[in-house]
Amino acid sequence: MLIGALDIGGTKTIVAIANEQGQILAKITFATHTADFKEHGRLCIQLLEKLAGECSAELADLAGIGVSMPGMVDFARGFLLHAPFAGWRDVAVVEYFQTILPQGIPVFIDNDTNNCALAEVLFGGSGERDYIWMTVSTGIGSTLISDGNLIAGASFCAGEIGHFRVEEQNPRPCTCGRAGCLEAHASGTAIGRIFREALADSSSLRNQLEANGLSDDAPGCAQLAKLGNPTGMEIYRQAGDYMGKALSWAVNLLNPAVVFMGGGVSRDLELLRPAILHRIEAEVVRPSNRVGIRQSQLGYEASLLGAAALVLKKL
Amino acid sequence: MLIGALDIGGTKTIVAIANEQGQILAKITFATHTADFKEHGRLCIQLLEKLAGECSAELADLAGIGVSMPGMVDFARGFLLHAPFAGWRDVAVVEYFQTILPQGIPVFIDNDTNNCALAEVLFGGSGERDYIWMTVSTGIGSTLISDGNLIAGASFCAGEIGHFRVEEQNPRPCTCGRAGCLEAHASGTAIGRIFREALADSSSLRNQLEANGLSDDAPGCAQLAKLGNPTGMEIYRQAGDYMGKALSWAVNLLNPAVVFMGGGVSRDLELLRPAILHRIEAEVVRPSNRVGIRQSQLGYEASLLGAAALVLKKL
Repeated sequence: MLIGALDIGGTKTIVAIANEQGQILAKITFATHTADFKEHGRLCIQLLEKLAGECSAELADLAGIGVSMPGMVDFARGFLLHAPFAGWRDVAVVEYFQTILPQGIPVFIDNDTNNCALAEVLFGGSGERDYIWMTVSTGIGSTLISDGNLIAGASFCAGEIGHFRVEEQNPRPCTCGRAGCLEAHASGTAIGRIFREALADSSSLRNQLEANGLSDDAPGCAQLAKLGNPTGMEIYRQAGDYMGKALSWAVNLLNPAVVFMGGGVSRDLELLRPAILHRIEAEVVRPSNRVGIRQSQLGYEASLLGAAALVLKKL
Repeated sequence: MLIGALDIGGTKTIVAIANEQGQILAKITFATHTADFKEHGRLCIQLLEKLAGECSAELADLAGIGVSMPGMVDFARGFLLHAPFAGWRDVAVVEYFQTILPQGIPVFIDNDTNNCALAEVLFGGSGERDYIWMTVSTGIGSTLISDGNLIAGASFCAGEIGHFRVEEQNPRPCTCGRAGCLEAHASGTAIGRIFREALADSSSLRNQLEANGLSDDAPGCAQLAKLGNPTGMEIYRQAGDYMGKALSWAVNLLNPAVVFMGGGVSRDLELLRPAILHRIEAEVVRPSNRVGIRQSQLGYEASLLGAAALVLKKL
C-alpha cells in the first residue's frame, strides 16, 4: 500500500510517499510558502505526483493522503480553523485537495501534534494509554491521549499548552496576540531569538559561535551549550524551566504516564530535562509527579509519519 | 429501587437513601470524624440502616451503596489512596464496608468530584459531552469529561486543579505540603481564613459582621460582599481571579464547553464570576475562551447524588 503524506509546517513542508509499516519510500523537503495556501497546496500535489513516479506509481495509486498542519484543525469537517504563524483561517483543506486530485483518493487532515501522537502509538511501540505528546518546533503544540483516546475538546481545540502564560514579569509577545506564552519563550523560534539577543550583547559569544562554525539559531545555541558555554546552557535551562512550569499544570490535571517530546528542539531534550524535572518535582502532586519525560522514538519526521498514520487509522 | 448514598466530605458526612430518579428519600448530616476511618465508616452504616428503616426497608433491600470521598481514589480496586484533609491513606474502603454489611450488597466508591460530574449527566440534564466539574468546598477538586468519558489518568489522579500553583509572590501553605496552590487561596476554607485575618485587622469590619449577625467564615464573607462591603467583595474578587487563572490553563488544555461549579462556595458564584471571566478572556485562546461558567444544577447535594449516580452507572 502506498500512502501520500504531507507535513505542512510553519517553516518547511515535507511531501512523501510512505508504506503501511511507516517507512518513507521517497520524500522532498522545501520551504512553506505562507502567502497563499492554495498555491502551496498545488505545489505539494505536483511534488507528490513526482515522488509517486519515483516509486513507479501514479497519484491515482495512492490509498489515501494524510495531511499534518500546525494550528487548529476541525478534523471532522476537514477544515484548518486557524494557523497563527501563516494567518491562514477557515481553509477547507480536504475539499481543496480533492478538487486538484484524481477522483476517489481519500484525504484526511489533522493537527500535526495529533498526528504525531497517533504515529507514536502505531509506529513507536510504547504501549502507553495515557500520555501527552508535545511538539517543540517553530511553535509549541500538544496532544492529550486519555485511555488511548484523543481528547479533542468541544471545538477541536484541546492541547493549547503553547499558549499557557509562563512569564508574567517580562513577557515576550506571542503570535496569538497575547504575551508571556510558553511558545513565545521556549519554542525553537523563541530560543533562536533569545540566543541572537545574547549574541548582539556579547562579542566573545559571537566569536565562540563563529570559531565553531555554528548558526545563530536554536540548534547553534544547543551546540554551544554542549560545549559548556554558560550563556547557551542558561538559555536552554530557562526554556526547560518554562516547559516544566507548563507541563506541571498539564500533569497535575491529566496524570499522564509519559510526556513524549517531538519537534526539532526535542533533539536537545537532555539540555532541557533537568529544569523540566525540577519544576515537576516541585509543583506536581504525588503520584502524578512520577511522569516520564521522553524524546519521541519517531525522530524528526514524527509529524510526517503521523500524516501516514492518519490514513491508516481512517481507512 | 432503593440506593444507599454516602458523601463523606472533609467537614461533614451525609448518609442518605435515594431512588433511581435521584430523589433523596431520607438523609442525615453529621460531622466527619477524621481520627479513625473504620469507626466513622461503622457509624455511616448504622445510620444508613436507621434511614432504611424510615423507608420501610432494611440494609439488605438496598440495590447498592455508592460512596463519594474527597482525595485520590482508585475506583477499580475500591481504594482511597490519599485524603490529605484527614491523613487517610491506602484505605480498602469497599472491602471494609463489605465486611460490616449484609452479604451481596455491591459497594462502589469514587472521588467526590468524579461522582458529581456523573450526577450532572444523569440528573442535571445539561447534555454536554466535554466539560469540567470543579468542586469548591473545604478543598478544591475537579473532574474532566472528554466526549462523555471520564479522564482518569494513568494512576487515577487526574483533575488536581486544586494544586495548581496560582500565587508565587505570597504563597499560603497547602495541605499537600507545598504552598501557593489554588486550594490554599480560593477554597471555602481559604476564603474563611483570609476573611478572619481581615476581621482581626479591622474592628469596623467585625462590627459590621456582628451587626448583621453573620459568621466569620466564607458564607459570612459572601453575605457582607452582597451588602456592598469592599473587603468582602475584594476577598471574593481575589478568589475568583485565582480560580480564573487555574481554569485558564485547564480550558486552554481541554477546550471544554462548560465548567460546572459545585460545592458550598459555588452558591456565591455570582461574586466570583466577573474575575473568572476576566482571566479567561485575557489568557485563553479563541475559540476555547467561549467556555461557559455555570453553577451546578444539582445544588449543594451534588456529591451525595453522585454517590447514587455511581450505583446506577455500575449496576
